[in-house]
Parts: sequence; structure tokens; C-alpha cells
Amino acid sequence: MEKVEKKNENPLYLEIYEYYKNLILLGRMKAGEKLPSIRRCALERQVSKTTIESSYMQLAAEGYIHSVAGSGYYVSEVNFEERKRIAPSYQQNKKQEKPLYDFVSSTVDPKSFDFELWRRYMKSALRNTERLVAYGDPQGEYDLRVALMNYVNEARRVVCSPEQIVVGAGVQSLLGILCALTDVRNPICFTGHEFKQGQAVFKDRGFDIYYRRTFAKDLSFLKEKKAKMLYTFPSHMTPWGEVMSMKTRLELLSYADKEDCLIIEDDYESEFRYYTRPVPSLQSLDGGQKVIYIGGFSRLLLPSLRIAFMVLPVELMDIYQEKGRYYNQTASTAEQIALCQFIRDGHLKKQIRKARKIYMSKSQELGRVISEVFKEKAKVLPNEGGFLVPFEIKTTLSIKEIEERASKAGIKLRVAEKLSHEGWIYLILSCSGVEEELFKESMSLLKDVLFE
Amino acid sequence: MEKVEKKNENPLYLEIYEYYKNLILLGRMKAGEKLPSIRRCALERQVSKTTIESSYMQLAAEGYIHSVAGSGYYVSEVNFEERKRIAPSYQQNKKQEKPLYDFVSSTVDPKSFDFELWRRYMKSALRNTERLVAYGDPQGEYDLRVALMNYVNEARRVVCSPEQIVVGAGVQSLLGILCALTDVRNPICFTGHEFKQGQAVFKDRGFDIYYRRTFAKDLSFLKEKKAKMLYTFPSHMTPWGEVMSMKTRLELLSYADKEDCLIIEDDYESEFRYYTRPVPSLQSLDGGQKVIYIGGFSRLLLPSLRIAFMVLPVELMDIYQEKGRYYNQTASTAEQIALCQFIRDGHLKKQIRKARKIYMSKSQELGRVISEVFKEKAKVLPNEGGFLVPFEIKTTLSIKEIEERASKAGIKLRVAEKLSHEGWIYLILSCSGVEEELFKESMSLLKDVLFE
Repeated sequence: MEKVEKKNENPLYLEIYEYYKNLILLGRMKAGEKLPSIRRCALERQVSKTTIESSYMQLAAEGYIHSVAGSGYYVSEVNFEERKRIAPSYQQNKKQEKPLYDFVSSTVDPKSFDFELWRRYMKSALRNTERLVAYGDPQGEYDLRVALMNYVNEARRVVCSPEQIVVGAGVQSLLGILCALTDVRNPICFTGHEFKQGQAVFKDRGFDIYYRRTFAKDLSFLKEKKAKMLYTFPSHMTPWGEVMSMKTRLELLSYADKEDCLIIEDDYESEFRYYTRPVPSLQSLDGGQKVIYIGGFSRLLLPSLRIAFMVLPVELMDIYQEKGRYYNQTASTAEQIALCQFIRDGHLKKQIRKARKIYMSKSQELGRVISEVFKEKAKVLPNEGGFLVPFEIKTTLSIKEIEERASKAGIKLRVAEKLSHEGWIYLILSCSGVEEELFKESMSLLKDVLFE
Repeated sequence: MEKVEKKNENPLYLEIYEYYKNLILLGRMKAGEKLPSIRRCALERQVSKTTIESSYMQLAAEGYIHSVAGSGYYVSEVNFEERKRIAPSYQQNKKQEKPLYDFVSSTVDPKSFDFELWRRYMKSALRNTERLVAYGDPQGEYDLRVALMNYVNEARRVVCSPEQIVVGAGVQSLLGILCALTDVRNPICFTGHEFKQGQAVFKDRGFDIYYRRTFAKDLSFLKEKKAKMLYTFPSHMTPWGEVMSMKTRLELLSYADKEDCLIIEDDYESEFRYYTRPVPSLQSLDGGQKVIYIGGFSRLLLPSLRIAFMVLPVELMDIYQEKGRYYNQTASTAEQIALCQFIRDGHLKKQIRKARKIYMSKSQELGRVISEVFKEKAKVLPNEGGFLVPFEIKTTLSIKEIEERASKAGIKLRVAEKLSHEGWIYLILSCSGVEEELFKESMSLLKDVLFE
């Protein structure tokens, strides 16, 4: 603590504090022994009584001495040895080095985001002194919620009031709150992406969880599990962006009505539809009766910008007022203010168009390069949207061999085990984390190591 | 959706899409009816087959039509009326207007924080493109964790490695993760501040919770409840900043050892000790065996800057590796980067000294003004640290009357019901949210309305 001491405002009282502390620690003053009265001590040392008082207060606060009413201060009994231990501090084995070509990562393409513009918005947001010195609205800044309401209403036809919108630092934070509102609703089914992070939140809350990649058209999966909640990605059911058909949507919603099942609609990557227009959100079809709509900006803006939001159905609003308000806001106020203005000024919509263009051409280009490089050895499969390029390669290698050879060459990729079949291995590459200029060399390299 | 349409990249295919969609919606094409083949349709309309294909894909995606292998596209059966509903959007009754003098709020004094300096750090943080386009470390940026390790080690003697530090957007986010690691440890006891937000997290996770303002010196409270965890504020046990004596600390730690009880040390406002030096943290006394140390920056920097951290004991590290990694980071990466540099450059320590000075003089001044204004009608009680000025006023008014009269006058204050006694009402005012210049007029006003 030396440093702290040197900087301390009052060295004098500390000197006296240290003096007695040492006497006690060295055993020169024994438990029960009386300290000189404040008056006497002050006289002896030619310092003010307040100084001595402070020293004694400090010694007492730390339990070295205690005062006996009307009599004075006495040394306390404390076994100091008992606590002389050092923590065996925990060391993790360092993380492995970055791959040369990362076709798995979910980073966004720097080209897709205008950092200069965002810095300007953050800069002006950081001028809102009055709002930044306070805790802000636990539910999220009101003006941001209004902006979000208008945005999702126009883009996704979501029907709601700002009071139904809850802002949070990422989907998991929102699900944490949602669990507190719906803990009577068990079990919950997940379909589409496995979304382990989402399942973890519900699992840790004691929910029973069932996962199936797709539920049968007749929804038998939900019926047999008696699902009270369903977590689904209607705009992006598979890595390559299949959407839920209108027919299934309507069936799902009438099931939700009949069985009192809440549907959590994670509108993940709905903006990244390349060839078809976004399909209306479940929330819009249902008028917000049974659907909890979840939206975020990880892909659209930056993953490091931790702002997501959920739209609660009216039936959850009362319990949110009761339980939700105990959850402080997790998203940074400054970033909320910046995002609000960013949306108001129409930049979010521009950003969507820009990002969509970039990723559409990138995923097309990656597909083209794969066909060109692998020729008849690969079948590139259609990609409806998103960032992933799915393709099959004709090979006798095992999945393990493929992954090993690739990673030896510095290529990180994902093999879809379930979709691979005799003689064909199914790969899914994300185009977002690798620069377009590197597609050719990385795929040629991959071909070499797989077909050497 | 008009707006979205206008902006769409491919109006031509949409035209055709709309054409058939309307035919179907208007019933001019009935379920089962066949659409013209893509070839024929393309010829008739003099557009490319791809365009027609896109239109049909869109219609199919939305469930208006379906394809029959080898035969073509047919109109599907869908009941569109079923879903024509509008959500009764939820309206909250507006929040009441801001009080004139808020002596309850936990906002920080704008004078205590150098916004210009922070803006500079944020600006440079926002230049780390490569780090901002990625998700970042779920546990918190590594360099920030190193900076935090050094800071808590120097300031609070906390012993740990960066691997033991978990960063999150506020204490609740951290407790949410902690619950997942300790859900076998029931019940949990809370002492000191009631900290409803903290209790809510554990309650919603199904923990049994017991609260007592203070546990008896012999820790009988913990013993009788068979506490498996204790949540406590050793540096700030009461609103006016009493600290836990060294004696109690040592007893507590040996109890924790014997009974395998984890202690959550919320080091809330440890920096704001005015007359005595900070007491060593429990974690430092215990060498990090049984103590989870929690620190934050709401008061030190800005409440709107959502960054807190916890130091896990070694015994929780393995389960954290297993379960914790499913929880994404909630704190903004940009703000983590800025804070890291801010700490490295020594600004945090400067900030502590600056803020401590400000709040020390403010709380002293408020106490002085109260004595001066209320004279013999009030007893100002000593304040060891923090932001709160406790005092008693001699009155026959009921607590309710006092609160009503005050709020009518635009003064928001807190009455400590449990501490009030016959003829004396116990008030606790926070000095942080009101400017020093307003102390005199607000207290005079309060006196007038209470003693008119």
C-alpha cells in the first residue's frame, strides 16, 4: 500500500497510526493494554487532538484497538498470523494464435461500417453531460425506444409502443430479463440455429429445453413437448438463410394462440436477404399478441456495440413493470444516445443497404471462386441470404482429416457433419471475416491441401 | 412497406411478384391453380427468366404459391383473414416530473468528471477498427483485465490473475453469470444495504434469500440460516459509510473457511473514505480463497458507463471455463478499450482523489448548512464516507407528512423509518445530485415547510 500512503492527504495522523500499529503487530503492546489518552498523546507529540483522534479512529476501524466508554482505547485481541496466505492465482493456457484465413468468425467487414461517421455520433453523444451523470432509464433511453419503434415498424411491420421495447447489452441480457418474466412457462423449444448461448440462459434458469433443427410441418415437435415457449429464427432458419414460409408462420401463430405458447422471434439477419424481400415478421402477422420480437445490431453495425432490443407482448407488460424494473440497463447510455440520433438521421437504413450489397457480392464472389478453383470437385449450393456460403466437396477424406489439413494450412472452416454424406463433405464458409482479395489464394490453398 | 419497396434493388421482379400476389389475394387465382411456366412468363413479359424466378421464389417464400416437382408452380391454400388484427399497444402512465432538489438520486456531480478528457480516450478507442468489428473476449478485453488487476492490487491489495477477472455491464450482469456458477449454493444472505437489484437476480434464479441490516457479531445470522453465500459491503456497511472492523473480517473469513461459505465482497464506494484510510479488502486478507471481489465505476466515473468487474476465487475457475464462456460480454468494447488506457495513464487514481475531495467537501458543507439552518431542531450525525448526510430533526410530524410536505416543495428526500424514534425523524440526504450552491436555499425551504 506504500504508494497509496505517500499520496494520502494526511501523513501526520498516518505516522501515529503506523507507530501504534507496529507496536501492536510486533507484540510490544499486548491485548488489553491501554493507549495514552488522546489529550496526553496530543500534548506529548505536539499535534492537534483531531490528528490523534483520526489515528485512533483508523486503528479502531481496522480492529487493532477498541474504545471502552469513559475509559479510553485498549489493544484488541486479533490473531494476525491466521490470515497470512497467498492466493494460488489461476493461469489459463494461452489461446491459440489467429488463423490466416478465418471462414468461421462472425466479425463484420470493416468496409461495411463507416467508423468516421460513428465517431462523430459518439462524440456528440458524449456531450450530453446531464444524461451521462445519471443511471438512465432501466428499460433503455426513451428516445432510443421511440426511434427503434419507428424503425421496426417500417422495416418489419412490428406493431408496438415504446413502453413495450426493452433495450439491453446483447440478446442474452434481454433473455435474462425475459426469464424472470416467464419462469412459469416450461418447457421451451429451440428450432433453427442451435444458439447455445441462448439455451444456456434458459438452462441456467432451470427451464427444460428441447432442440430440433426443424419442427415437422405439422408442429408435432411442439405438440409432443407441450412447448410453452418457442425460440425461433423465422427470417433465417438455416445458415444459408432459408425463411419460414407464410403457411408455417400462420400455423405457428394459431398454435401459439390455442396452446398459450409464447414465440420468441429472433429476427437475426432479417436484413440480409439478397434475392427475396424480407418476409413479414411473425410479430406483425400476429399483431404482437403472442410474439416476443428480438432485434439487434451486431451484424448491421458492430458486434462490439452491445445494443439489442426486445418487443414485449402486452400480456407481459404488467409483470415487466413489477419484476423488470429491478434490472438496471446494461447498454452504455452514450452509445444509446448515439444510436438514437444515427437512426433518426436515416443512417441505419443507408447502412442496411450498404452492408447488404457488400455481403451479397462477397458471398457470390466466394461461391464463384470455389466453383472456379475446385471445378467438378465441388458443388456450391444456393445461398438465400446472410454471410455463409455452403458447398459440398467430393472427397474420401474424413471430416477430422479435412479440419486438420485446413487448420495446418491456417484455414479455419466449419464442416456440417449432419449434412455430409458418403463421398461428399459439406462445408459452410463465412465470407464476412476474410477480405475478398484473399478468396482466391485461400481456396487454392484449401484445394491443394485437400487434394494433394 | 411502401418505403422499403421503393428503395428495393430490383423493382422489376417485385412488380411481377405484386401482380400475382394481388391476383391471389383478390381471389382471381384460386388455390391449386397453376402459374405460367417461368419460360413462358419470361417470354410474355420480355424479361429474363431469373427475374421471373425471383418473383416466384418470393411468392413461394411467403407461402402464396408452391412448386410441384417437374410440373411447375401452383397457388397455395392460406387463410389470410385469420391474421388481420392490430395489437392493443401498451401505454404506461408518464413518469412524474423531476424534483427541484433531488437529495435521493445517485447521479454523480458533473464537476467530478472530466468529460473532455474521457471524450479524447473514447475517440482514440473508436479507432481500433480491428477490435471493434469482432465480438471480443466474452470475459472482457484482456488488456483491460490486466489493468484492473494492477489497479485493485495496488488500491485494495486484491490478489489475482487476469484470468480470474470477469468484466460485465454492471454488477447485475456479473451476478447473473455468478448465479450460473454457484447455483448449488443455497441459501444466500445479504447484509448491509438491502440492494434489491442484487437480491432480484438471485431470487429470480430460485435462490433462498435472507436479509439482515447487520449480522450479530457472533455471526449467528449466518449460522442459523446455514448460509452458503454471503453478499456484503465491508467498506460501506451503512449509508453513512461505516466499515467492517478487522475483527469481524477475520471472524467472517474463518467462518467462510470452516463452513465452505462464499463471500461476495461488494467493494461499493471503498474509494470514498474521508477520514480513515481504506480498510484492506476481505479478498486481500483471505488471499482470494473464499471471496468473490466485486468492483465498479458508477460513482468513480459515470453511472452511464456500464463497466463493472468481479474477481473469481480459484475454486470457481473451472466451472467458469465450462459455463461462463456461454455468456457473451455485455460491456461495450470501445468503452473497455478507453477505460484500459485511462487506467494505464494513471487517470483513474487522479479521478479517485478528485472525486473524493469533491464529495468530502460537499457532504461536510451540506451538514454545516443543515446545522446552521435548523439550529437546535436538527442533529447532524457523523458521516464516515460516501455521499450521504444523515441527520435527525426534532418534530411531531409523521414520516408521511414530512415526505408529502417536502415533495410538495419540490424536495426529494429519504426518511430512514427504522432509525426514526419518538419525536425524532431520521433523514438521509445524498449530496451528489444537488449543486453546492443550492444547499442553503433548499434546506431553508425544507425548514419552512416542516416548521411553518
